[in-house]
Amino acid sequence: MNRPKHHIFVCTSSRINGTQRGFCCTKDSAAVARRFQEEIEERALEGEVTVTNTGCFGLCEKGPVVVVYPEGVWYGNVTPEDVETIMEQHIEGDEPVQSLMI
Amino acid sequence: MNRPKHHIFVCTSSRINGTQRGFCCTKDSAAVARRFQEEIEERALEGEVTVTNTGCFGLCEKGPVVVVYPEGVWYGNVTPEDVETIMEQHIEGDEPVQSLMI
Repeated sequence: MNRPKHHIFVCTSSRINGTQRGFCCTKDSAAVARRFQEEIEERALEGEVTVTNTGCFGLCEKGPVVVVYPEGVWYGNVTPEDVETIMEQHIEGDEPVQSLMI
Repeated sequence: MNRPKHHIFVCTSSRINGTQRGFCCTKDSAAVARRFQEEIEERALEGEVTVTNTGCFGLCEKGPVVVVYPEGVWYGNVTPEDVETIMEQHIEGDEPVQSLMI
Protein backbone atom coordinates (compact mmCIF):
# COMPACT_ATOMS: atom_id res chain seq x y z
CA MET A 1 0.00 0.00 0.00
CA ASN A 2 1.01 3.64 -0.51
CA ARG A 3 2.02 5.37 2.66
CA PRO A 4 1.05 9.03 3.02
CA LYS A 5 3.91 11.53 2.97
CA HIS A 6 2.15 13.41 5.79
CA HIS A 7 -0.41 11.85 8.13
CA ILE A 8 -2.40 14.44 10.07
CA PHE A 9 -4.10 13.29 13.29
CA VAL A 10 -6.81 15.53 14.77
CA CYS A 11 -8.19 14.90 18.25
CA THR A 12 -11.96 14.85 18.07
CA SER A 13 -12.26 13.41 21.59
CA SER A 14 -13.51 10.04 20.32
CA ARG A 15 -13.64 7.45 23.07
CA ILE A 16 -13.05 3.74 22.52
CA ASN A 17 -16.56 2.98 23.78
CA GLY A 18 -18.08 5.02 20.96
CA THR A 19 -19.02 8.16 22.85
CA GLN A 20 -17.51 11.54 22.10
CA ARG A 21 -16.67 13.48 25.22
CA GLY A 22 -13.84 15.71 26.22
CA PHE A 23 -12.30 19.03 25.49
CA CYS A 24 -11.21 19.14 21.86
CA CYS A 25 -14.65 18.30 20.48
CA THR A 26 -16.16 21.24 22.39
CA LYS A 27 -13.59 23.54 20.78
CA ASP A 28 -14.46 22.96 17.13
CA SER A 29 -12.00 20.11 16.50
CA ALA A 30 -14.49 18.34 14.22
CA ALA A 31 -14.47 21.46 12.05
CA VAL A 32 -10.65 21.42 12.13
CA ALA A 33 -10.64 17.82 10.85
CA ARG A 34 -13.16 18.66 8.14
CA ARG A 35 -11.14 21.71 7.02
CA PHE A 36 -8.03 19.52 6.64
CA GLN A 37 -10.02 17.11 4.47
CA GLU A 38 -11.32 19.98 2.33
CA GLU A 39 -7.85 21.50 1.96
CA ILE A 40 -6.39 18.12 0.95
CA GLU A 41 -9.04 17.77 -1.74
CA GLU A 42 -8.70 21.38 -2.94
CA ARG A 43 -4.94 20.97 -3.25
CA ALA A 44 -5.33 17.53 -4.92
CA LEU A 45 -3.17 15.90 -2.23
CA GLU A 46 -5.31 12.80 -1.64
CA GLY A 47 -3.08 9.80 -1.15
CA GLU A 48 -0.07 11.96 -0.38
CA VAL A 49 -1.67 13.53 2.70
CA THR A 50 -4.14 11.75 4.99
CA VAL A 51 -6.22 13.09 7.87
CA THR A 52 -7.50 10.80 10.65
CA ASN A 53 -9.59 11.73 13.69
CA THR A 54 -8.49 10.39 17.06
CA GLY A 55 -9.27 10.02 20.71
CA CYS A 56 -7.63 12.01 23.45
CA PHE A 57 -3.87 12.75 23.35
CA GLY A 58 -3.89 13.72 27.03
CA LEU A 59 -3.14 17.40 26.38
CA CYS A 60 -6.67 18.73 26.71
CA GLU A 61 -5.59 22.09 28.11
CA LYS A 62 -3.86 22.70 24.77
CA GLY A 63 -6.70 21.44 22.61
CA PRO A 64 -7.66 21.20 19.88
CA VAL A 65 -4.52 19.12 19.35
CA VAL A 66 -3.18 18.15 15.91
CA VAL A 67 -0.19 15.83 15.40
CA VAL A 68 1.58 15.36 12.08
CA TYR A 69 3.68 12.25 11.36
CA PRO A 70 6.24 11.04 10.42
CA GLU A 71 7.84 14.35 11.39
CA GLY A 72 6.23 14.27 14.85
CA VAL A 73 5.08 17.89 14.99
CA TRP A 74 2.49 18.66 17.69
CA TYR A 75 0.17 21.67 17.36
CA GLY A 76 -2.14 23.10 20.02
CA ASN A 77 -5.12 25.45 20.16
CA VAL A 78 -5.70 24.85 16.46
CA THR A 79 -8.70 26.66 14.98
CA PRO A 80 -10.38 25.96 11.63
CA GLU A 81 -8.77 29.21 10.43
CA ASP A 82 -5.28 27.82 11.23
CA VAL A 83 -5.71 24.85 8.91
CA GLU A 84 -4.93 26.77 5.72
CA THR A 85 -1.70 28.08 7.30
CA ILE A 86 -0.61 24.57 8.36
CA MET A 87 -1.37 23.20 4.90
CA GLU A 88 0.43 26.05 3.14
CA GLN A 89 3.52 26.37 5.30
CA HIS A 90 4.03 22.88 6.75
CA ILE A 91 2.41 20.35 4.43
CA GLU A 92 3.22 22.05 1.16
CA GLY A 93 6.18 24.19 2.27
CA ASP A 94 7.87 21.73 4.69
CA GLU A 95 8.15 24.50 7.31
CA PRO A 96 6.22 23.63 10.50
CA VAL A 97 4.21 26.57 11.87
CA GLN A 98 6.28 27.56 14.91
CA SER A 99 3.60 29.78 16.46
CA LEU A 100 1.20 26.83 16.83
CA MET A 101 3.70 24.21 18.01
CA ILE A 102 3.55 22.80 21.53
CA MET B 1 6.62 18.50 25.81
CA ASN B 2 8.10 14.98 25.55
CA ARG B 3 7.41 13.27 22.28
CA PRO B 4 6.82 9.51 22.38
CA LYS B 5 9.51 7.35 20.76
CA HIS B 6 6.72 5.20 19.32
CA HIS B 7 3.14 6.38 18.81
CA ILE B 8 0.70 3.52 18.21
CA PHE B 9 -2.60 4.37 16.50
CA VAL B 10 -5.40 1.79 16.66
CA CYS B 11 -8.52 2.14 14.51
CA THR B 12 -11.56 1.79 16.74
CA SER B 13 -13.90 3.07 14.00
CA SER B 14 -14.62 6.31 15.87
CA ARG B 15 -16.53 8.77 13.72
CA ILE B 16 -16.18 12.53 13.98
CA ASN B 17 -19.86 12.86 14.85
CA GLY B 18 -19.39 10.75 17.95
CA THR B 19 -20.81 7.46 16.76
CA GLN B 20 -18.76 4.32 16.43
CA ARG B 21 -19.55 2.36 13.30
CA GLY B 22 -17.48 0.42 10.86
CA PHE B 23 -15.42 -2.67 10.53
CA CYS B 24 -12.53 -2.54 13.00
CA CYS B 25 -14.72 -2.02 16.08
CA THR B 26 -16.69 -5.17 15.19
CA LYS B 27 -13.43 -7.12 15.07
CA ASP B 28 -12.23 -6.51 18.61
CA SER B 29 -10.16 -3.42 17.89
CA ALA B 30 -11.16 -1.84 21.23
CA ALA B 31 -9.61 -4.88 22.93
CA VAL B 32 -6.48 -4.40 20.77
CA ALA B 33 -6.19 -0.79 21.96
CA ARG B 34 -6.68 -1.81 25.59
CA ARG B 35 -4.06 -4.58 25.30
CA PHE B 36 -1.53 -2.05 24.00
CA GLN B 37 -2.26 0.21 26.97
CA GLU B 38 -1.83 -2.72 29.38
CA GLU B 39 1.41 -3.83 27.74
CA ILE B 40 2.79 -0.28 27.89
CA GLU B 41 2.03 -0.15 31.60
CA GLU B 42 3.38 -3.65 32.31
CA ARG B 43 6.63 -2.81 30.52
CA ALA B 44 6.84 0.62 32.22
CA LEU B 45 6.96 2.38 28.85
CA GLU B 46 4.52 5.20 29.64
CA GLY B 47 5.77 8.44 28.10
CA GLU B 48 8.09 6.60 25.75
CA VAL B 49 5.25 4.76 23.99
CA THR B 50 1.75 6.18 23.48
CA VAL B 51 -1.41 4.52 22.18
CA THR B 52 -4.24 6.54 20.64
CA ASN B 53 -7.54 5.27 19.23
CA THR B 54 -8.63 6.62 15.85
CA GLY B 55 -11.32 6.78 13.25
CA CYS B 56 -11.22 4.89 9.97
CA PHE B 57 -7.97 4.59 7.98
CA GLY B 58 -9.90 3.50 4.88
CA LEU B 59 -8.50 -0.05 4.88
CA CYS B 60 -11.48 -1.77 6.49
CA GLU B 61 -10.95 -5.03 4.61
CA LYS B 62 -7.64 -5.35 6.45
CA GLY B 63 -8.95 -4.33 9.84
CA PRO B 64 -8.28 -4.12 12.67
CA VAL B 65 -5.62 -1.68 11.46
CA VAL B 66 -2.74 -0.45 13.63
CA VAL B 67 -0.24 2.21 12.51
CA VAL B 68 3.00 2.98 14.32
CA TYR B 69 4.79 6.31 13.86
CA PRO B 70 7.30 7.83 13.27
CA GLU B 71 8.46 4.68 11.49
CA GLY B 72 5.22 4.48 9.48
CA VAL B 73 4.59 0.76 9.87
CA TRP B 74 1.06 -0.41 9.00
CA TYR B 75 -0.35 -3.62 10.45
CA GLY B 76 -3.57 -5.39 9.46
CA ASN B 77 -5.85 -8.08 10.89
CA VAL B 78 -4.38 -7.40 14.32
CA THR B 79 -5.85 -9.48 17.15
CA PRO B 80 -5.49 -8.86 20.89
CA GLU B 81 -3.11 -11.86 20.90
CA ASP B 82 -0.82 -10.14 18.36
CA VAL B 83 -0.24 -7.15 20.65
CA GLU B 84 2.38 -8.86 22.81
CA THR B 85 4.33 -9.86 19.67
CA ILE B 86 4.25 -6.29 18.32
CA MET B 87 5.37 -4.90 21.68
CA GLU B 88 8.15 -7.47 22.05
CA GLN B 89 9.56 -7.50 18.53
CA HIS B 90 8.79 -4.05 17.18
CA ILE B 91 8.45 -1.63 20.07
CA GLU B 92 11.12 -3.10 22.31
CA GLY B 93 13.18 -4.96 19.68
CA ASP B 94 12.99 -2.41 16.82
CA GLU B 95 12.09 -5.20 14.37
CA PRO B 96 8.64 -4.64 12.81
CA VAL B 97 6.55 -7.84 12.66
CA GLN B 98 6.71 -8.69 8.95
CA SER B 99 3.89 -11.25 9.05
CA LEU B 100 1.37 -8.60 10.17
CA MET B 101 2.50 -5.77 7.91
CA ILE B 102 0.28 -4.53 5.08
